[in-house]
Amino acid sequence: MGITIDFGCMIPAFSLQAVNSYAGKLRALHARLGERRAAGGLPFCDLPAQDTGGLKDCARRLAGRFANLVVLGIGGSALGLIALNSALRTPHRWAEKPPRLYVLDNIDPERVRTLLDALDPRQTLVNVITKSGDTAETMASFLIFREWLAAGAGEAGYRERMLVTTDRAKGALRRIAEEDRLATFAVPDGVGGRFSVLTPVGLLPAALLGIDVDGLLAGAAAMAARTSSPELLANPAYLGAVLHHLGWLGGRRISVMLAYADRLYDLADWYRQLWAESLGKRLDLDGAEVRVGPTPVRSLGVTDQHSQLQLYKEGPDDKIYTVLRVGAFPADLPIPRAFPELEAVAYLGGHTLQELFQAEARATEAALVKEGRPLTSVSFPVVDAGAVGEFFFWLELQTVAAGELLGINPLDQPGVEEGKQLAYGLLGRPGYQARRAELEAIRTGDGRLSFG
Amino acid sequence: MGITIDFGCMIPAFSLQAVNSYAGKLRALHARLGERRAAGGLPFCDLPAQDTGGLKDCARRLAGRFANLVVLGIGGSALGLIALNSALRTPHRWAEKPPRLYVLDNIDPERVRTLLDALDPRQTLVNVITKSGDTAETMASFLIFREWLAAGAGEAGYRERMLVTTDRAKGALRRIAEEDRLATFAVPDGVGGRFSVLTPVGLLPAALLGIDVDGLLAGAAAMAARTSSPELLANPAYLGAVLHHLGWLGGRRISVMLAYADRLYDLADWYRQLWAESLGKRLDLDGAEVRVGPTPVRSLGVTDQHSQLQLYKEGPDDKIYTVLRVGAFPADLPIPRAFPELEAVAYLGGHTLQELFQAEARATEAALVKEGRPLTSVSFPVVDAGAVGEFFFWLELQTVAAGELLGINPLDQPGVEEGKQLAYGLLGRPGYQARRAELEAIRTGDGRLSFG
Repeated sequence: MGITIDFGCMIPAFSLQAVNSYAGKLRALHARLGERRAAGGLPFCDLPAQDTGGLKDCARRLAGRFANLVVLGIGGSALGLIALNSALRTPHRWAEKPPRLYVLDNIDPERVRTLLDALDPRQTLVNVITKSGDTAETMASFLIFREWLAAGAGEAGYRERMLVTTDRAKGALRRIAEEDRLATFAVPDGVGGRFSVLTPVGLLPAALLGIDVDGLLAGAAAMAARTSSPELLANPAYLGAVLHHLGWLGGRRISVMLAYADRLYDLADWYRQLWAESLGKRLDLDGAEVRVGPTPVRSLGVTDQHSQLQLYKEGPDDKIYTVLRVGAFPADLPIPRAFPELEAVAYLGGHTLQELFQAEARATEAALVKEGRPLTSVSFPVVDAGAVGEFFFWLELQTVAAGELLGINPLDQPGVEEGKQLAYGLLGRPGYQARRAELEAIRTGDGRLSFG
Repeated sequence: MGITIDFGCMIPAFSLQAVNSYAGKLRALHARLGERRAAGGLPFCDLPAQDTGGLKDCARRLAGRFANLVVLGIGGSALGLIALNSALRTPHRWAEKPPRLYVLDNIDPERVRTLLDALDPRQTLVNVITKSGDTAETMASFLIFREWLAAGAGEAGYRERMLVTTDRAKGALRRIAEEDRLATFAVPDGVGGRFSVLTPVGLLPAALLGIDVDGLLAGAAAMAARTSSPELLANPAYLGAVLHHLGWLGGRRISVMLAYADRLYDLADWYRQLWAESLGKRLDLDGAEVRVGPTPVRSLGVTDQHSQLQLYKEGPDDKIYTVLRVGAFPADLPIPRAFPELEAVAYLGGHTLQELFQAEARATEAALVKEGRPLTSVSFPVVDAGAVGEFFFWLELQTVAAGELLGINPLDQPGVEEGKQLAYGLLGRPGYQARRAELEAIRTGDGRLSFG
């Protein structure tokens, strides 16, 4: 069963007339994307048809052999897998079956040090993931885990336990993999990190965790079919893009994804990168400074009813909401009947926890709609691989379309380069000496306004 | 050692002249807050002087007796403790020593069901926390855990294992505690959830986890002294409030708290509730509709350099940043030297992971400052109880002052009531039948724009 996407509550914040005025523009956009795709410029669109034989073979070969899977990756090399693991295995650490997943998407030294202390290298499989092959954080973690595995499991043990996902030809990690004779998997050309969850970046560790990778791709293919129309009102990716664009033009600069299920919360974190990094741009396609970009925010129901709902309901009308819900939870339990004389708790007894949860979800949606907040309601009848594959593909295409409407390139990320180079300067990487001096000249404080 | 707060990089986004123009206003505000406090209207200010004897006795009595501590609470009854546990024990589940903490701040039925299946009731201490004593989510969880403890540990075992934190006199939970003869701790009158971390709400479970609660209060007292001046430029709480207010007036509607340490990340989630629920308001103090409220966002370094930095650097200038850093991490490890011929990795060898992490933090700060983004830099020389206590008190006072500048009441949350009542209607709570009909009349969809 596929996901349901209901844009009904985006109206009346945006009029159907305003939406329809984009119909011609979207037909042109559709033709443009078709040409670009035919020329190989949108390879993420072709991922549903990929051959997963190699990575499934690898997963079969390694099944049951390791207690732990450590993934070394950051940003697009981590967020998709984290979302997959939460949605399709479990978001709750106490319920996780082996292999246990540890994603090192930060290099907080305490995180890395304590994890090494906690794991047995002989029981640990590692997958290092970096498209470029030279991401500083990932390569530093790789060097540490390489030494740790070799020391704890021997040189042959290291080779058995280290799987490499990187560019098929370029980059330092590719050369290291050859030198160390490691098993490798290729990130397809032209697929950027935030669009890579359905490449071996996400699929290899997913397969190692027992997730149905073909189901994911079948879901993505189904959504590709559901978003193949050039007609705005028949295409949920285009319609979502136009509605968000109208929101942007009208001053709704924040896009809240509110997940009503622990399993769906990390999907919102995946979206947070996709939306921010794709649409936050200084220059438009003509090189003019535009400085656009909505800010994505992830939120969890019912938890955030007690943290953010006050702002969402009473604060400024500067947000668009996407609410994720599930049809039925895989587990439930009754609320015991007790204290009939205490009206403030007696009504709870006899309901199940799921009934309470779903009532709160529905009531919160209604309260936001009543306030006139624009809201898209997405329902997962069941949280399975097909539904999650659909979700990924829908939002990837919506993001590309939203970038087109903003007139920017949604596939690059030029703004992260400067920080990297300044850090290289501090670390003494050859060729970046001038960056160190530049950094030291940047005033990062003013004594007059400092306390402590 | 106390925290350092450096507002230097908020200039030149805001001119010192504009800041100084608020000096008189803040003196008046200071006098007003002083009067309100003297009249008992700001009881959170008096928390540093509280007697912690009772809760420390309880913690001593129970020390070493339980493998697990489950906290049933949501919003302000959960976020402070989660932040304390991450900052002062560990943010990493693999490094957690007993008692292991489980905070049920969501009622996702799968979360509750799987947790019950994973824990041994005889080995589990439970602390239920709700000020009002009738929070639906918390009371539903309470009824479930009450039954589970009684079934697994007997009636006497249940009484031993259930600690109640609620209002000293009012509410259903107080009456239940009396009827069931449970140990109780009182939330002081007038301290709302988001200001309650330094009451038994946060301090009792903290003490049970071995956290230095007196150190927290000493830190809060130190910050109370550091924020006691009526002079704007001598008071970091007032200065922060004015700078954020200038940001709000100038269209910077988003407040990003970017934590550069896993230990500090949940402090940003605590802040997210404090800032959103306090300042997101429809009416000002005169009852006029104003619909104000900045949107807080939490962010983690270096992770989000690969997710949000592109937007922060190149996107619209609609954000204010607060960067949290640590002076030194409690653990570190060297990056091995390897592959001298591969320039893209060779420069890493010989550095420690902490050096890489701190270089990235500094470079990111510099890149944002170079772009003209307003930024407050907060440094924790060591992440200890004193520093965390300082941090809480600073931001609580800053939030109250920011509310005063916006002309709203920062201590209430009228907007969350409607959703609650609609949910009561759905659940058949007596007295709320009309709410059910109301909910069903709210259009939460439009068939023409629905896909699936």
